[in-house]
Amino acid sequence: MALVTSTLTNGILRVVLCNARKRNPLSSEALNQLECAFRTASDKSCRAVVITAEGPVFSAGHDLRELKSLDPQKQYELFARCGSLMNSLRHLEVPVLAAVEGLAAAAGCQLVAACDMAVAGPEARFSLPGASVGLFCSAPSVPVVRCVGQKAAAFMLYTGTNIDAIQALRFGLISHRAESNEALGALVEDIVQDIARKPKDVISLGKRFLQREAKVQEVRSYEDAARVMADNLQLKNGKEGLESFVEKRHPHWQ
Amino acid sequence: MALVTSTLTNGILRVVLCNARKRNPLSSEALNQLECAFRTASDKSCRAVVITAEGPVFSAGHDLRELKSLDPQKQYELFARCGSLMNSLRHLEVPVLAAVEGLAAAAGCQLVAACDMAVAGPEARFSLPGASVGLFCSAPSVPVVRCVGQKAAAFMLYTGTNIDAIQALRFGLISHRAESNEALGALVEDIVQDIARKPKDVISLGKRFLQREAKVQEVRSYEDAARVMADNLQLKNGKEGLESFVEKRHPHWQ
Amino acid sequence: MALVTSTLTNGILRVVLCNARKRNPLSSEALNQLECAFRTASDKSCRAVVITAEGPVFSAGHDLRELKSLDPQKQYELFARCGSLMNSLRHLEVPVLAAVEGLAAAAGCQLVAACDMAVAGPEARFSLPGASVGLFCSAPSVPVVRCVGQKAAAFMLYTGTNIDAIQALRFGLISHRAESNEALGALVEDIVQDIARKPKDVISLGKRFLQREAKVQEVRSYEDAARVMADNLQLKNGKEGLESFVEKRHPHWQ
Repeated sequence: MALVTSTLTNGILRVVLCNARKRNPLSSEALNQLECAFRTASDKSCRAVVITAEGPVFSAGHDLRELKSLDPQKQYELFARCGSLMNSLRHLEVPVLAAVEGLAAAAGCQLVAACDMAVAGPEARFSLPGASVGLFCSAPSVPVVRCVGQKAAAFMLYTGTNIDAIQALRFGLISHRAESNEALGALVEDIVQDIARKPKDVISLGKRFLQREAKVQEVRSYEDAARVMADNLQLKNGKEGLESFVEKRHPHWQ
Repeated sequence: MALVTSTLTNGILRVVLCNARKRNPLSSEALNQLECAFRTASDKSCRAVVITAEGPVFSAGHDLRELKSLDPQKQYELFARCGSLMNSLRHLEVPVLAAVEGLAAAAGCQLVAACDMAVAGPEARFSLPGASVGLFCSAPSVPVVRCVGQKAAAFMLYTGTNIDAIQALRFGLISHRAESNEALGALVEDIVQDIARKPKDVISLGKRFLQREAKVQEVRSYEDAARVMADNLQLKNGKEGLESFVEKRHPHWQ
Repeated sequence: MALVTSTLTNGILRVVLCNARKRNPLSSEALNQLECAFRTASDKSCRAVVITAEGPVFSAGHDLRELKSLDPQKQYELFARCGSLMNSLRHLEVPVLAAVEGLAAAAGCQLVAACDMAVAGPEARFSLPGASVGLFCSAPSVPVVRCVGQKAAAFMLYTGTNIDAIQALRFGLISHRAESNEALGALVEDIVQDIARKPKDVISLGKRFLQREAKVQEVRSYEDAARVMADNLQLKNGKEGLESFVEKRHPHWQ
């Protein structure tokens, strides 16, 4: 049964959580299908990944019925696999964008936070309510606290309250809030087309740099950056970029 | 003389700075009384700590008259003790919430930043004005810069300007701004009741995880989180949570 | 040819990018002149540095024509020197403020993020568009991601979109947005006068502490802070501050 659909068209890999009836849970099978979908991101033609969901719930997080049915070792393996999947998004060659129209809860909220970029419509909601069912949202907190800071993360984790898109924007969980779902769709297209117009190897080089620099101090990052930028200019696309700029013509990317 | 009152009622430890006439300074004696008050947070029945203050000043920070009267070694000991007290809030078993109606200055602002959560009323103000009296707010900057980021922290530290609750919300020093002090009171009750409805051991486990993860990189935190979540499900309250969810009944927490 | 002017008047070092016709590029020669200008910040009388720019573009970043003309080793050296210059702002003895009226792009945006403080007028714009010309804004991302967080930085870096001052304020790239350029000028004067009223050695001590604490964990910073504050009180200005406060008179700073 398809819990996730994915299509790669015009360079954009669109991954859709499509188990709306069950609130798009991140069950073992859904994680399987997501892993499989994200593998397509390594296709030569792929330029960006967009994750959306059908129905009023983007994702309700783990499937608690499934969790209950597993023995402790299998529960651990499921959590570890979910964490690996989230972390793997940072290592895809292309940028990953979450576009949220509904409720992203627990591991669903984690998925949004784990994407490179996140935008939302007016009805989007975000929550980390695990403690209400006796399971603290420890893993979801990993990327969320790095987006929203400690005060907002603590509020979400200890109270389980839904926050709306205005708060999510203020806290830094999303970078943009669209006024309608139509406007959200247009914003997503703008973002992916902006990316697609740029040379792929340069975007990938940049994404790798951002991952490295998240792990080191500023002065180390500056040293790394000078080398990365000099190497960037030795790429064919780096040379073509400067040449086309100086010659006042459109660049021809490889 | 009572500089701080504290009452533990219905699981909520309410700590009130009550030396309004002197602007609630964090004198040695006030630190003593705060330490003493926070010890009650380890009471089995305690579920959350709320810190408020009487009068128009939440806390003006250190008592400069007292500081002046101390020899250098005693000054150092006072600063070290104040830092330890602030840091100890992160290690209480239960969440700590600051609810600010007035001015929180210098070490008073540090106290707000050092709490897990912070909310404020419309008249709240925050400042780090120490340099104006020749004593840079170095220690207050420790938790403040981690909440508000470097641009906002530098502005507060170098200029000493009061910021209002709208700015404090934008900067991330507080997570919510209430439109009136009545609304602030209602918000505080909502937050503590939300916490009190959840199982205590699960909240404590979560708080410990958040402290650990503030010290490590994202990928390490993910690994830690999988183990923490699997262990969480082995708690009696973890099992009861999943069972009650599947059986569609209210959980009975231990 | 003057690409940068600088004047030290009444303790304020005003550095102005004045190559408006060419959009204030950070060419080798401009970096030379900036380095030279910033040296004046070590003048005994200097209390703060303000960086502004003439014309509608604060700075367009590197001079791509110059970059194209250099061999790879010279390109690397230019990037390394630019990074060193940016990083050196954190080590000046006095606070550095960027006041932005126009577009700060690429290394121009980096310059804003590398300052201790940044404020902007209503027409200010910020962007990291390097990938559009095949050169990812790796070095600009170093201070920008530390100001705005990963979601906003990723949006800026992958799409190259201009953000306005309202977004820059929300993201944390600036701490204040003025409603007009006149109001921006007044805000800048307020900030520098607030700094100039405080004792210089205390501000410098604070700036050094902030640099150190950016590199360590919170608990280590608290330990460091107690020592720094105790030492601060042994400065003549530390003693004068407490004495003047207790004696209810204006302090006389050295």
